[in-house]
Amino acid sequence: MKLYDGGRAPNPRRVRIFFAEKGIPLPEIVPVDIAAKEHRSEAFTRMNPLQRLPVLELDDGTALAETIAICRYLESLYPDPPLFGHDARTQALVEMWNRRVEHGLFSSVAAVFRHGHPSMAELEDQVPEWAEANRELIDDHLWILELQLAGNRFVCGEALTVADITAGIAIDFMKPSRIPLPEDFVQIRRWHAELVARPSWKA
Amino acid sequence: MKLYDGGRAPNPRRVRIFFAEKGIPLPEIVPVDIAAKEHRSEAFTRMNPLQRLPVLELDDGTALAETIAICRYLESLYPDPPLFGHDARTQALVEMWNRRVEHGLFSSVAAVFRHGHPSMAELEDQVPEWAEANRELIDDHLWILELQLAGNRFVCGEALTVADITAGIAIDFMKPSRIPLPEDFVQIRRWHAELVARPSWKA
Repeated sequence: MKLYDGGRAPNPRRVRIFFAEKGIPLPEIVPVDIAAKEHRSEAFTRMNPLQRLPVLELDDGTALAETIAICRYLESLYPDPPLFGHDARTQALVEMWNRRVEHGLFSSVAAVFRHGHPSMAELEDQVPEWAEANRELIDDHLWILELQLAGNRFVCGEALTVADITAGIAIDFMKPSRIPLPEDFVQIRRWHAELVARPSWKA
Repeated sequence: MKLYDGGRAPNPRRVRIFFAEKGIPLPEIVPVDIAAKEHRSEAFTRMNPLQRLPVLELDDGTALAETIAICRYLESLYPDPPLFGHDARTQALVEMWNRRVEHGLFSSVAAVFRHGHPSMAELEDQVPEWAEANRELIDDHLWILELQLAGNRFVCGEALTVADITAGIAIDFMKPSRIPLPEDFVQIRRWHAELVARPSWKA
């Protein structure tokens, strides 16, 4: 396997943290420089027409794109510890929470960054109105997460799952997006501090 | 089980088609009138704080939201026919294509509808600039699908999967969004005609 990696960008980090939480060493890494637009090159576009990172190239040449598709493949190969739930009900709840965070907090923070950050002006056709509309939604998204964490150590209960990786990365992504995390989100702060202290979070 | 349903909206339809493709009868249906804003009621918000449809209520009272989480739960209970792939590699590829379509075509068509359609003005804080930016992306999304279907009967090969349901519903959603499907997408037209002819598509 080869992992086409994108450095500090949120999705490549999600996959590297997933590897670390599984206790699997990273495969051969192929760095792709997003700032230098290497992900828009002809060679990379042939591999992933959507020009997104990361991509896991399997030994048979299959190019597997989409962060969660890569993580799910690793879950099939290395079931322990289960990071997508351990039975029909918990698997469905992990899928639900991972999607709630992806379509909510993660998506809105990404919109503020991509459509509002000056450094992205050259890479994106920015729609500043979209950045502003999403900035106004961040507090609602944070409350959804805060309330869920009020009764749970991790997003889906006592064990860390892929939903925590997605949510933790979304919180991390607020900093370069220049979105402050208000003091009153005490559950999010407690949970995020526990994530950051895990060895995987350095991945 | 009870299915809180939203009529002709795309996501409730995805779940009903999934039931039909599995050959499982629908559970008890609780209609929720989106136009009358019943999904914003206090009772519904307690069940799904994101105020989205559909929701599958399990017999133990668990409220399972998010279309794909509901479908994945049904896949666990009723594995045949497999609609999320049958081994590690095909499961990952189905996840990849389902996400590519969700984040690409489906998301852009939904943005055109939600942020551009006059009938949505009362339900959404519309950002017309976002509708227009997404309208310009539709052709690129369609070409990604067209090229994939050029070598495949269905999106992921010889058998229908959840990625076809997502993609087919996205194509259907173009009509109320007033987006024409140009004649030159011959593979999409061939594949979509086959979907529409399936009994499940009436669900």
